[in-house]
Amino acid sequence: MSDRLRLGIAGLGTVGIGVVRIVQQHAALIAARAGRRIEITAVSARDRTRNRDADLSAYAWETDPVALARRDDVDLVIEVMGGSEGAARATTEAALAAGKDVVSANKALLALHGQALAEAAEAAGRVIRFEAAVAGGIPVIKALTEGLAGNEIRRVMGVMNGTCNYILTRMQSAGLPYETVFEEARQLGYLEADPNLDVGGIDAGHKLALLAAIAFGTRVDFGAVELQGIGQISIDDIRLAEDMGYRIKLLGVAQMTGRGLEQRMSPCLVPAKSPLGQLEGGTNMVVLEGDSVGQIVMRGAGAGSGPTASAVMADVIDIARGIRIPMFGVPAALLAEATPAKASAPAAYYLRMVLIDKPGALAKVAAALGEAGVSINRMRQYGHDSAEAPVLIVTHKTTRDAIDHAVSRMARTDVVLGDPVALRIEDI
Amino acid sequence: MSDRLRLGIAGLGTVGIGVVRIVQQHAALIAARAGRRIEITAVSARDRTRNRDADLSAYAWETDPVALARRDDVDLVIEVMGGSEGAARATTEAALAAGKDVVSANKALLALHGQALAEAAEAAGRVIRFEAAVAGGIPVIKALTEGLAGNEIRRVMGVMNGTCNYILTRMQSAGLPYETVFEEARQLGYLEADPNLDVGGIDAGHKLALLAAIAFGTRVDFGAVELQGIGQISIDDIRLAEDMGYRIKLLGVAQMTGRGLEQRMSPCLVPAKSPLGQLEGGTNMVVLEGDSVGQIVMRGAGAGSGPTASAVMADVIDIARGIRIPMFGVPAALLAEATPAKASAPAAYYLRMVLIDKPGALAKVAAALGEAGVSINRMRQYGHDSAEAPVLIVTHKTTRDAIDHAVSRMARTDVVLGDPVALRIEDI
Repeated sequence: MSDRLRLGIAGLGTVGIGVVRIVQQHAALIAARAGRRIEITAVSARDRTRNRDADLSAYAWETDPVALARRDDVDLVIEVMGGSEGAARATTEAALAAGKDVVSANKALLALHGQALAEAAEAAGRVIRFEAAVAGGIPVIKALTEGLAGNEIRRVMGVMNGTCNYILTRMQSAGLPYETVFEEARQLGYLEADPNLDVGGIDAGHKLALLAAIAFGTRVDFGAVELQGIGQISIDDIRLAEDMGYRIKLLGVAQMTGRGLEQRMSPCLVPAKSPLGQLEGGTNMVVLEGDSVGQIVMRGAGAGSGPTASAVMADVIDIARGIRIPMFGVPAALLAEATPAKASAPAAYYLRMVLIDKPGALAKVAAALGEAGVSINRMRQYGHDSAEAPVLIVTHKTTRDAIDHAVSRMARTDVVLGDPVALRIEDI
Repeated sequence: MSDRLRLGIAGLGTVGIGVVRIVQQHAALIAARAGRRIEITAVSARDRTRNRDADLSAYAWETDPVALARRDDVDLVIEVMGGSEGAARATTEAALAAGKDVVSANKALLALHGQALAEAAEAAGRVIRFEAAVAGGIPVIKALTEGLAGNEIRRVMGVMNGTCNYILTRMQSAGLPYETVFEEARQLGYLEADPNLDVGGIDAGHKLALLAAIAFGTRVDFGAVELQGIGQISIDDIRLAEDMGYRIKLLGVAQMTGRGLEQRMSPCLVPAKSPLGQLEGGTNMVVLEGDSVGQIVMRGAGAGSGPTASAVMADVIDIARGIRIPMFGVPAALLAEATPAKASAPAAYYLRMVLIDKPGALAKVAAALGEAGVSINRMRQYGHDSAEAPVLIVTHKTTRDAIDHAVSRMARTDVVLGDPVALRIEDI
């Protein structure tokens, strides 16, 4: 490795070009901070002819990112292609095998193959850093891995998918139904090619799994994240929540309990006036709770060229400065296999359902709840013209198991139409 | 230096004991994260007999912290005594001279002597880290120095004195006058021995000067911080601000402009619903703005044993991990001497004054404003029984110079009693 740090960028989408811009515009500033020059020597993308609004003429071009990863004039590979398999995985593995450090923005790849990649990096004596993979520009990986390193972490929470937050806040502010706002988001280019990655909670779940691994010193286990997307959330839910002083957010929570590691990503009701409730549009928020530090809240842009490139460059400058920390904060061999546990902390739940409007219908629902041991705090049947009656129930604190039990009992009555919507109320 | 990292703690107040607790309780966790054992070998405080509710029997005792700093069995000195001169300064200098790294929570010392200490550390090949000196447990030094290292920083803002924020929010929530709440804060032990360090904005100004040095690559210059304390703020100001949808916060702002570096710490009106407006009690909030990342907001406990010790330990673990970054992010010789500049960005101002209730009084005030080029957005004279009439004016956007000019013109009329209160309105 020369005194300069030589970058190879695999992927020239919005993030890759953002990195090019920072390196070009702030060369002197970055050299002063890093203590050495940071230069791009090679780039890779599928289509060389595309206009990218950046001058790439000084860099070698590789059509194959794996070839880029193996170049002798590249010290550090930036993987900003995305995708959990294929080229992204092959490029990352090739870079490590060739003795190069890797900076990645690829949450899907790392959430699914993080343990193997951490082991490969250590075996090769290299590092993988991934600030850009979680919560865009917010330096949350650094805060958790380094800034809170003296703490036993109690809980990690976050709103970490800007597209879902855009959809939910837009439904609320404009009074538009889910389908309309979903279509708007698609036209604005906010949705992944497979929209279920966003609205199904998968992308946010990847991020939560990565944070949980660092927070609790466990092997990253995306498969154990309880996932619930926002597709069920209707404009009625948004309005009913608002009436009660709540907003609906796709919220991730990870915590270690006596029974194992809880990881869930699901739409929840949070107080409208809380920092999470106030979060608008594509902004992300992460909450870190440690035994000494208490609660730290971080807010910032969760996506976009500049913010994500800022996070990539933080990792690059760290590496240039000689900072070499294991991927998840401790050596891969020390990461424990966590037992997945279902969310256990009792909470109040919001239940919305449609009843067939006939005598005794409400009584049957109330009975189903009672049999499941769920007690009712508030119940409201709304005025209606058809034979279908919308009903809202807020329960007293209860467990997810009891709610699931109650919902399945309701389904066995002959008065509930479709699936009830059950959302946890988080008083944070 | 042995494989273990051996700590000497100078100062056994609330923060020092907090550090002892973390090291004792989390030895295994910290060793896994740091890659080596971290142990305390020696401690120092004035009075050995005081009950500190911690087992210190395994550590060597030094009454003189300078002797502690020179011990052969200490690799890293933690300075948590406080004070800008005397023992704290001597201990820090002795530690560097003896070839030890230093972790400091001492904002006064670093704000006043930061440049000389950074130079001394580099000359000795050692580092000084000071996460605990700014905003308690919030890892803001790390976020700014490392997490945002790819950004040109545009602006840094923050509410960074928990005592002032406690006083202002308590005045607002309980409707109590300044003097009463000040006395409460004193009895709760929230105030420094010299309360002016808190309510005069000095402590918060120290923190702002440290952040500005990192943000803009300049020599730390506390002397150039425009300081205004909260002692002038009356319960009337709190109420009038609330009526208009604002809260009053002791807000620090640092930004680099074409005319030089602006640093100001002063009570400002911020929107009641904004994250800064919502900040309650001893909580701190720091806002970092970079050209790529946009705005990052961090919130957490600004003081207290656990949070401050958490920040100290983050620095200790960084050093144990081999992270060695210059004190202000770039080598001391590269830090520029900044030209201090008065706050230039125009803003609306809140003006409160007491007029002698006689014909033409309001006209004279309006004339003074007009002559200074300040135009009035809203003016309100309040009902009153005495011959003294409280008047509130909100201006259109104008400069600090124009406001100062207007206020001095008002003083030359014969209708304004005492000094008008002039507070900037920050729409953030």
